[in-house]
Amino acid sequence: MKQGLKIVKVGGAVVEEEEQLAQLLKDFAAIPGRKVLVHGGGRRATKVAAELGIESKMVNGRRITDAQMLEVVTMVYGGLVNKNVVARLQANGINALGLTGADANVILSHRRPPVKYAATPSQPATQTIDYGFVGDVDEADGSILAHFIEKGIVPVMAPLTHDGEGHILNTNADTIAAETAKALAGYYDVTLIYSFEKKGVLSNPDDDDSVIPVITHESFQKYQADGTISGGMIPKIENALNAIDAGVSQVIITRADAIDGNHGTKIVD
Amino acid sequence: MKQGLKIVKVGGAVVEEEEQLAQLLKDFAAIPGRKVLVHGGGRRATKVAAELGIESKMVNGRRITDAQMLEVVTMVYGGLVNKNVVARLQANGINALGLTGADANVILSHRRPPVKYAATPSQPATQTIDYGFVGDVDEADGSILAHFIEKGIVPVMAPLTHDGEGHILNTNADTIAAETAKALAGYYDVTLIYSFEKKGVLSNPDDDDSVIPVITHESFQKYQADGTISGGMIPKIENALNAIDAGVSQVIITRADAIDGNHGTKIVD
Repeated sequence: MKQGLKIVKVGGAVVEEEEQLAQLLKDFAAIPGRKVLVHGGGRRATKVAAELGIESKMVNGRRITDAQMLEVVTMVYGGLVNKNVVARLQANGINALGLTGADANVILSHRRPPVKYAATPSQPATQTIDYGFVGDVDEADGSILAHFIEKGIVPVMAPLTHDGEGHILNTNADTIAAETAKALAGYYDVTLIYSFEKKGVLSNPDDDDSVIPVITHESFQKYQADGTISGGMIPKIENALNAIDAGVSQVIITRADAIDGNHGTKIVD
Repeated sequence: MKQGLKIVKVGGAVVEEEEQLAQLLKDFAAIPGRKVLVHGGGRRATKVAAELGIESKMVNGRRITDAQMLEVVTMVYGGLVNKNVVARLQANGINALGLTGADANVILSHRRPPVKYAATPSQPATQTIDYGFVGDVDEADGSILAHFIEKGIVPVMAPLTHDGEGHILNTNADTIAAETAKALAGYYDVTLIYSFEKKGVLSNPDDDDSVIPVITHESFQKYQADGTISGGMIPKIENALNAIDAGVSQVIITRADAIDGNHGTKIVD
């Protein structure tokens, strides 16, 4: 039987704001056994960019990463946010090791080619957008990550990858978490925990306590058909089910203050 | 017999300017066997600080690191410079892993207390200066570094440490290199290579080719007595001899384009 491993993905605000960070460090440190932390940092990147006089351009919620913005996210995600989280975890007794995809070649990606998009969902995709130095993941190296983990190390992963040709690429933190989970599924019984602003997937958007405890492939079809799950939650759950299909044991969607694996919505096979 | 290990320290300009960086990557990649790279980044930190409207304050050549400047050096050393060097080394076939002292707890330090200093060397030390978030090294962990190295990994070390209480501290890159060399001397036959702007220690400052090939404790006394070695070179060689006394096999002072271990001035027991 495989050992358990928890991979926790937290958004930017959770690691950028002192009060939330202190809570996260306490909660994450309390998770027993093998674990990995994946963090964002977008708000801080936007703030530092603004201070440098660089405008943040977003399309469909994704950052356009030109050469200047690549320097900003490399500084903020790989340096400021990652190293502060690592140092703070060390102070909490966690032997954290900060990693971008370039470090020990853990995540290789390729630059995303320009893609067609629609200005609004109802229009045809007629415009072309170049996201710039953004990486789509080719491969995460579960072997070296498992080696670090067996040495008692807790990887802390920044949302940056590399193309193997000397370029750092900006990569969505949810994707980093999912690809890391899939790569480690060969070595561990992996629980992938996504924190977001709600307690879980809600059956009634007006009731914050209406958390759906478990979603399977089968019940997801039903929830979509009857309209219980709609909009932006659909791709989130599709991605979670993809991870399950790739060998991840369970995906949990929960609030940042409840990342122990026993709260939120569990997505299973 | 111990395996050989080369630790190469390069200054800021070498990793910050494209032409010099390309040369360094080629030269460093060509060094056979086990190796470690330690880099600076001060010029880039000064530039980014200026772009953010933060003034760089230096005393006796050392940076005053207040809270704002700590954020800048954490971004620039730990993020921008370190991750670019790591990605570029990966493209050169080197399995680089970027590390600050906080990562895997490799270098623990304590914040330097305010120190007395003299405005000029001829005056008494009557002024007190607080360097801010600057770390003096307590301990480097040779064991975990050796573990990484035996896994085929090449550590790339940024000039940042941590205090074990959640704070990143700015630490001189020469010190990082020396402490890393001492910590690894128990595991390897260590050659510590410092690159600087000259071909080595010169017997005639006006003749760039007058490199002293070897300096020992004994000949250092002689060179100091007869005035061949003076000024800022004295503490450099004292630090090198300290490393030798702590078990490092040899220290080499050489130009950045001659880091193969066969050029420059060798400092030995």
